[in-house]
Amino acid sequence: MTAEVTPEIDAFLRETRVGVIATVDGRGHPRTTPIWFLWDDGAAYLFTGRKTRKWRNLLANPRVSLCVDHRQPPYASVILDGAVEEVTASMGRSLYEDVRRMAVAYYGPVEGEAFAGRYRGDQPDVAHFRLVPERITHQQS
Amino acid sequence: MTAEVTPEIDAFLRETRVGVIATVDGRGHPRTTPIWFLWDDGAAYLFTGRKTRKWRNLLANPRVSLCVDHRQPPYASVILDGAVEEVTASMGRSLYEDVRRMAVAYYGPVEGEAFAGRYRGDQPDVAHFRLVPERITHQQS
Repeated sequence: MTAEVTPEIDAFLRETRVGVIATVDGRGHPRTTPIWFLWDDGAAYLFTGRKTRKWRNLLANPRVSLCVDHRQPPYASVILDGAVEEVTASMGRSLYEDVRRMAVAYYGPVEGEAFAGRYRGDQPDVAHFRLVPERITHQQS
Repeated sequence: MTAEVTPEIDAFLRETRVGVIATVDGRGHPRTTPIWFLWDDGAAYLFTGRKTRKWRNLLANPRVSLCVDHRQPPYASVILDGAVEEVTASMGRSLYEDVRRMAVAYYGPVEGEAFAGRYRGDQPDVAHFRLVPERITHQQS
């Protein structure tokens, strides 16, 4: 099952770079952390260190909820729920390109390019993964 | 166990009104939603409708993770993990007063007071609850 992405939701997600991701840890407790994401063609692309708690939790339980919200009135949020999967070669994505797009949008071109440079080439310590949402919840106040 | 609240964390939480709360639903999946909170004397005070999915999830599993972050550089976040409990009469809190403080801080005095007015008196359909965090994670970039 893939949730429907309306043009309004697509635009909201493409213009936003930071969300809050929730995972479930080994004790069944929810854990949250802010995370960059890149919304592209119906999926949220993300990355994290392979040694982080977040990645350990995801290896054991790939279910996530990613909350993307605009904090100032008028309030709006899009919540993406589903299971994440690691990006594989057949998906035709580049970790460096995805990080570059996130970093440039967040920091601007100069600082963004400099940030992304460290993600060039093989990155055995970095997990590149994506969420194709099963459920999308859109709220507006 | 109660986590230590440094003056820096206390100030960060007191100046912020919106967080993202994660709960775990009946299937063990994480769920997120934006939520207002009021940080006061070591606890986050919150409210929601008793008929919401969030409250149903919390009645079955009171564990939450509340992520409070500032989105613009320099990036900073405080994550509060623990179990929520319903506010009882012995705690000396007023739902109306707590909502009023959140709404005035969010909307400003005129619109905030107007918003809060609907929470005066008995509110059988509203759950007023709090999180005394067991774990506090503070990140700065």
